[in-house]
Amino acid sequence: METVIKVLDKPKLKNPVLIEGLPGIGNVGRIAAGYLVEELKAKKFAELYSPHFLPFVLLHNNVTELLKNEFYYWKNPRGNDLVILVGDSQAGDQSGVGHYEVVEKILAFAGELGVKQVFTLGGFATGSIEETKEIEVLGAVNDSKLAARYKDAGVNFTDTASRIGMIVGATGLLVGMAKNKGMEGVCLMGETTGFPILTDPRAAEKVLQALVKMLGLKVNLSTLDQRSKEMEEFLKKIEKMQQKALKQLSVKEGKEQLSYIG
Amino acid sequence: METVIKVLDKPKLKNPVLIEGLPGIGNVGRIAAGYLVEELKAKKFAELYSPHFLPFVLLHNNVTELLKNEFYYWKNPRGNDLVILVGDSQAGDQSGVGHYEVVEKILAFAGELGVKQVFTLGGFATGSIEETKEIEVLGAVNDSKLAARYKDAGVNFTDTASRIGMIVGATGLLVGMAKNKGMEGVCLMGETTGFPILTDPRAAEKVLQALVKMLGLKVNLSTLDQRSKEMEEFLKKIEKMQQKALKQLSVKEGKEQLSYIG
Amino acid sequence: METVIKVLDKPKLKNPVLIEGLPGIGNVGRIAAGYLVEELKAKKFAELYSPHFLPFVLLHNNVTELLKNEFYYWKNPRGNDLVILVGDSQAGDQSGVGHYEVVEKILAFAGELGVKQVFTLGGFATGSIEETKEIEVLGAVNDSKLAARYKDAGVNFTDTASRIGMIVGATGLLVGMAKNKGMEGVCLMGETTGFPILTDPRAAEKVLQALVKMLGLKVNLSTLDQRSKEMEEFLKKIEKMQQKALKQLSVKEGKEQLSYIG
Amino acid sequence: METVIKVLDKPKLKNPVLIEGLPGIGNVGRIAAGYLVEELKAKKFAELYSPHFLPFVLLHNNVTELLKNEFYYWKNPRGNDLVILVGDSQAGDQSGVGHYEVVEKILAFAGELGVKQVFTLGGFATGSIEETKEIEVLGAVNDSKLAARYKDAGVNFTDTASRIGMIVGATGLLVGMAKNKGMEGVCLMGETTGFPILTDPRAAEKVLQALVKMLGLKVNLSTLDQRSKEMEEFLKKIEKMQQKALKQLSVKEGKEQLSYIG
Repeated sequence: METVIKVLDKPKLKNPVLIEGLPGIGNVGRIAAGYLVEELKAKKFAELYSPHFLPFVLLHNNVTELLKNEFYYWKNPRGNDLVILVGDSQAGDQSGVGHYEVVEKILAFAGELGVKQVFTLGGFATGSIEETKEIEVLGAVNDSKLAARYKDAGVNFTDTASRIGMIVGATGLLVGMAKNKGMEGVCLMGETTGFPILTDPRAAEKVLQALVKMLGLKVNLSTLDQRSKEMEEFLKKIEKMQQKALKQLSVKEGKEQLSYIG
Repeated sequence: METVIKVLDKPKLKNPVLIEGLPGIGNVGRIAAGYLVEELKAKKFAELYSPHFLPFVLLHNNVTELLKNEFYYWKNPRGNDLVILVGDSQAGDQSGVGHYEVVEKILAFAGELGVKQVFTLGGFATGSIEETKEIEVLGAVNDSKLAARYKDAGVNFTDTASRIGMIVGATGLLVGMAKNKGMEGVCLMGETTGFPILTDPRAAEKVLQALVKMLGLKVNLSTLDQRSKEMEEFLKKIEKMQQKALKQLSVKEGKEQLSYIG
Repeated sequence: METVIKVLDKPKLKNPVLIEGLPGIGNVGRIAAGYLVEELKAKKFAELYSPHFLPFVLLHNNVTELLKNEFYYWKNPRGNDLVILVGDSQAGDQSGVGHYEVVEKILAFAGELGVKQVFTLGGFATGSIEETKEIEVLGAVNDSKLAARYKDAGVNFTDTASRIGMIVGATGLLVGMAKNKGMEGVCLMGETTGFPILTDPRAAEKVLQALVKMLGLKVNLSTLDQRSKEMEEFLKKIEKMQQKALKQLSVKEGKEQLSYIG
Repeated sequence: METVIKVLDKPKLKNPVLIEGLPGIGNVGRIAAGYLVEELKAKKFAELYSPHFLPFVLLHNNVTELLKNEFYYWKNPRGNDLVILVGDSQAGDQSGVGHYEVVEKILAFAGELGVKQVFTLGGFATGSIEETKEIEVLGAVNDSKLAARYKDAGVNFTDTASRIGMIVGATGLLVGMAKNKGMEGVCLMGETTGFPILTDPRAAEKVLQALVKMLGLKVNLSTLDQRSKEMEEFLKKIEKMQQKALKQLSVKEGKEQLSYIG
């Protein structure tokens, strides 16, 4: 089985840009992108499934759900249409190969949609943040001229390398691999404590403020804090399930763990 | 080498449903499906082999047997024909990719057979069960309307999400992935203590009672307890062998374990 | 890269049988098959390379050698020609998938050569053996009628399942998978202490005695003990190198091990 | 996604030889090859990307860079043109399969360029070196006649097997696998302490001296020590990032590490 994208609808999109927000540090990207989907009432039009996700189904009430990523679109009356990618899981949690494969599929699909620009949303961990301190958004790009273009968006493009040095997973690879496809890529990372157990709506809000400026969107961010509570519950549950699943799947010598599977 | 299905016979089946019972928690599903095969005198017609099974052969007397899953069919004079999947091993014990690949192959084969409904049988662990307590069967579906259809089968579809949250391995993935193939899926899980070393015929009986009601089958369950003893011996042996094989295959630095292989 | 077989010569073989002896418990199979190659002056005609072998080259003096398996042939004036498979390494030491893939390739190649029978040679570990005790050879087959055919070869086909229960790696899989190709398969395993560090020429001799009887060969076994000394040195070296390579390849968090590679 | 080579330019090369220097023990090979690129002002003409590299992007200032290997060429007015391979990372740090795949791709590409000879540069660890001692260069070849040809290059071809026994990773596999492609292969390894944290320009200089003699090049080595400082900083950073990435990617049971990804 390969990573597959199941297309539910084929919207005609006008100069679409791809915005990615998957689970990660502080779930900053996931919350920011998820809020955008809800606030803009974006419509789901495709789902991505991968053998590189953990092999279990989640239960929503009594209904099984494969782990998946979801593509939403929003028709922008005043500018670029949006394609928003959110999901339960990053690919390849245990395998570099999975990460590359899933990102490759996402970009191939984005290319078919006419996407020329990719924005990825995430967090970066600082260990601790003083409550009173202004939350910073670090930026990275796949072409140095982009930092200049977006210099008024309130993003720190100067200290990214020295502060974090690298970006792991889809958030980084999407921007890096986009370049080889001739797409512009921008990564926005909100400062957070880095305890993954804590989703961080404050960092998500800062990231969204920057994105909104860059894309000239009008999005009401006032309900983000409240809405992120619901997402937090859901994301915590998935994280707990992933831990539990990994425990069941990891086979220990001399332990009777083999039969824990399904 | 890919996961392959070796077809031994091509029966003509009438609206067949797929019933899966592979080794897992309390071996509930394996015993239930195995009993069904024996009691109905179902006929084997295909075998599944996978490089994602552990790389060893079992010995039955002096005869080597690759780890495999087996498909049986039973012609139902009064309703849907049955395809019953049992086996020595779940795929991909150490790899998510293996689980997805094997389940994909099973569903592709089921599709060719005309299967429109999948029932998977398994257990869920509670840590301990009072002997006197009624054993519960939790249910999950891949379409919410199915829970209503089967509401009289004695299955608890209400508490599944809160009690277990997810289903790991083939039992969950078969139901989850069936949806993307347009097949209905139902998962029935019998309550058991969860010590895999103990096969649990009582939980298997409860699961079978529910399945029999759902499918309108007539199956004499009175010898399940006795028959499950034999299966228990066999399943214990396989489990022990898997542990032993994993020990031989796991290479430890600084230890002389490389040469333990065959 | 796939597992590949590099064909050096295309001998015309008369009803060839495949004899396998790769490194394993007590190196019994490797020594037995290697001795056969030397004593019969069998000719190398093909080499197998696999990405599932560990990623290093051995040095023979100053010459690099990829890990490989080697196919030799011997034209038998009085019966079946022989194809003998020996090698530095079993495939897939860390991966079940590798074991299956390599065995699949070996059998596909054997099929092209016209092989209808496979004999695999190995050891089984007993923990300790009294010096004075007769060394036993356990046998396994992939078709129960074969045990009867070879009942006079001094092989114990009766206690195999109860004594060892399974056979891990190529020695087992070759016999098990041969069945699905319509080939007969016999596995001969010599009793040894199971310390891999000790190669066991006594067990290898017993295994060869059985093989020679089964195939009606005339092989002088008198120099096996002496010749096995040389092989022992070589096999010990490879084992040591594999340990060293694994150590270099295993990446430990927080340790500076990444750069140990080449 | 497969390992891919992105060709930026198609230079016409005259009897080109391939010189490889990737990160490894003491970063000897990487520094030596990197210095050659700079000193000869070699031109980049191709990049290799692999899903077997770790799944993160490096940040150079604010610009994301995928991990990659790079091919440079230099037109030699007096002899063989050079193709020099340098890079951030060896492939497959955690997987033998990755190492073989990347090396296979490199050699296939080299074959298309007309390469008939491969020189790989690396280090070998001695644990400690007395400061005053002459640094030794050990050599290995894929054809014994090559050692004789290069006997005047100051390389010790006599003690390689006894001193190191094997060569792990691309440095060894490139030479070993080159043989199966009909290419000559020579591996030059400079003696170093083996603490990977220390890049070792002295060993790199010795390796380059040998290479320069073998190929009849004129290269000014006087600024190697100084230039290697800059490379050292960069390589240390990558190594640190790899450690950090591995830590984020390695999923620990019972720890909240899943969400550390991006």
